[in-house]
Amino acid sequence: MIQTCEQIPYPQLAEQFGTPLYVYSQDALTQAYRAYETAFSGSQPLICYAVKANSNLSIIQHFAQLGSGFDTVSGGEIARVLAAGGSADKIIFSGVGKTVAEMQFALQNNIKCFNVESLPELDRLNEVAGKMGKIAPISLRINPDVDAKTHPYISTGLKANKFGIAMSDAERAYQHAASLPHLQIVGIDCHIGSQLLDLSPLSAACERILHLIDKLAAQGIELQHIDLGGGVGINYRPNDNPPDLQPYADKVAQLLAGRDLALILEPGRSLVGNAGSLITRVEYVKQGEEKNFVIVDAAMNDLIRPALYQAYHHIDNVDGSRQNRMVADIVGAICETGDFLAQEREIAAQQGDLLRVHSAGAYAASMASNYNTRNRAAEVLVSGSQARLIRQRETFDDLIAHEKACLVE
Amino acid sequence: MIQTCEQIPYPQLAEQFGTPLYVYSQDALTQAYRAYETAFSGSQPLICYAVKANSNLSIIQHFAQLGSGFDTVSGGEIARVLAAGGSADKIIFSGVGKTVAEMQFALQNNIKCFNVESLPELDRLNEVAGKMGKIAPISLRINPDVDAKTHPYISTGLKANKFGIAMSDAERAYQHAASLPHLQIVGIDCHIGSQLLDLSPLSAACERILHLIDKLAAQGIELQHIDLGGGVGINYRPNDNPPDLQPYADKVAQLLAGRDLALILEPGRSLVGNAGSLITRVEYVKQGEEKNFVIVDAAMNDLIRPALYQAYHHIDNVDGSRQNRMVADIVGAICETGDFLAQEREIAAQQGDLLRVHSAGAYAASMASNYNTRNRAAEVLVSGSQARLIRQRETFDDLIAHEKACLVE
Repeated sequence: MIQTCEQIPYPQLAEQFGTPLYVYSQDALTQAYRAYETAFSGSQPLICYAVKANSNLSIIQHFAQLGSGFDTVSGGEIARVLAAGGSADKIIFSGVGKTVAEMQFALQNNIKCFNVESLPELDRLNEVAGKMGKIAPISLRINPDVDAKTHPYISTGLKANKFGIAMSDAERAYQHAASLPHLQIVGIDCHIGSQLLDLSPLSAACERILHLIDKLAAQGIELQHIDLGGGVGINYRPNDNPPDLQPYADKVAQLLAGRDLALILEPGRSLVGNAGSLITRVEYVKQGEEKNFVIVDAAMNDLIRPALYQAYHHIDNVDGSRQNRMVADIVGAICETGDFLAQEREIAAQQGDLLRVHSAGAYAASMASNYNTRNRAAEVLVSGSQARLIRQRETFDDLIAHEKACLVE
Repeated sequence: MIQTCEQIPYPQLAEQFGTPLYVYSQDALTQAYRAYETAFSGSQPLICYAVKANSNLSIIQHFAQLGSGFDTVSGGEIARVLAAGGSADKIIFSGVGKTVAEMQFALQNNIKCFNVESLPELDRLNEVAGKMGKIAPISLRINPDVDAKTHPYISTGLKANKFGIAMSDAERAYQHAASLPHLQIVGIDCHIGSQLLDLSPLSAACERILHLIDKLAAQGIELQHIDLGGGVGINYRPNDNPPDLQPYADKVAQLLAGRDLALILEPGRSLVGNAGSLITRVEYVKQGEEKNFVIVDAAMNDLIRPALYQAYHHIDNVDGSRQNRMVADIVGAICETGDFLAQEREIAAQQGDLLRVHSAGAYAASMASNYNTRNRAAEVLVSGSQARLIRQRETFDDLIAHEKACLVE
């Protein structure tokens, strides 16, 4: 009745590594990656794991070993991929705010492609590449103006957001790119949002982008690849139905049939989200007049999704035999009412118990902070009966390292 | 027409220390502290700066030199105060999730008082102190059930939140505390919320707490101090009217007159909020069909308040002579639509310009993360014509330090 990660009971991991603790199943990572390979086998895509979802070096290393490419959004993420043994020629560089220094770093390392998000970025990249005597391989991110029907904060394919280039401006942008001497047009990309449970907007976006590709070809602009971005959702609730990759993959394969276009995908959350859990210990159970609170040793600094996106994470007791369920808010120790992991949740929990926050592999550890001077959690990767520390728990000395030397004596 | 921090133009600071950059005015910190001393001079309070608002060691050091005490919410914050030269006998330890290790650390250092937030915490603290042969000085945090009329995430004085003990349970809780041999009851505290622009709820809370103090005295429980917490708001918009401390201070002085009760205050935001700015450089100006975007090199990882609380921060161009104002969203480079610093704001901004995000002294740097593998910003403290680095900018090597050694060779 004690839950395990692969073959290791969570209490054993908590004992060995302390809490709060991020625990990832290597097998779950592999299976999620293989599910893409299998569903899309007809299209032979380059799967570029979106590093921002979980940027731990060992997670990147594992995907690199599976053959993955990487979608990155900062110079730091490119450096992570390289530090973890990923290949530069499988790195895509996305993001709306690429700095000159980041462009230089990416060009030095000969990454596969820049996903360019605006006309000013095209001009800057051309200039930077020119000064370095390089040709920058580029793709333009085009907004297909498809509504992904997801949370406003993570919906990115509509006209009125900061990402990409409007469909109506796309041809002009490609013509401008073609006129710039230090750029080589290699592809097109789109990304319409995140946590999509209905994948039909994704194939609708693909159709619109292909229509544009045909128009560009008629103008002599031939593309080598189409990058459909990521956005496939995961189950956060026990009764959620996982989105089915196969119909989406089949539709894409059908749309690409007979075209000489390589396919790139940029899955993030769907590769790591359900592979991870946040294990946390109950510090106090506080039964109140109007509400019960289970106060745990993880908090919004460890997992900000509930506070930031009103996100639901399933939480249960690691010991399934615990009786006396109650309805409670599951909260951290941070001095904000917004510091909750779950609200009005049925849970059995006593002081000292371990709780498991499910689906905490994506946008969890990578968004952690030191708010309230809390050390960031350790991370562990489990494979079978082996557990490997993949991020050491921070110490107080780590937290003040950049400030201590600055004190006036 | 170039804005300055005290006597130093922001462009000079940006040149010397890079961007994004947190800049604090030491004079503004001092003035904010003195404003409390002056307003409350009749009550001679112990002002305990709430470290969570801005936990930089040099900020703490400055307040310690002004004579401040400290309100802390974690073992890490206590350690920060001690590292910065603050006195343990002026440290208050608040928070709903105090761990055994944190209690031990606080007791070893003989802090002034534990603000206890629940009955289970009383029992744990009694046990921990007993094992150490110590007596723990305690105050109980009582919820006066006053509506602070602020953002739900930072409203803390109502019945249905995780903080404190309900007024209706207070006498029973004090009697229980009095029965525990390793605790010494020294005070009472309340904290009803944050960013209050109307201070009348604060004096209303004081009245309710004093009524309780009288009832406790009648039962033989005599308190040495009343801690009214923090919560005084600051101006975030240019036309906001700052809340006036004096009527609140006068009312408290009147209520405390003739009582043998020391007063403790726990201001955080109101001591540091308006002393700080976030200086950021414009990377791109993207003029769109439906919207304009000013893309800057600061992002939600540097300042999460707009995304998390829909908070307003005033933003203007460091160069006041810039023409061609437009309406734009001011956004960071992070791949989320929620990554904005301001929406629909009138601003003059060209590529390369410096923008100043005002009122960024509180809940800004202390909440920063490395999301998207972005290095956290440097922090600078300005005094007159002197600028002192008080937090070094992070490097990529810092970010992977805890993961690199964990990679499989």
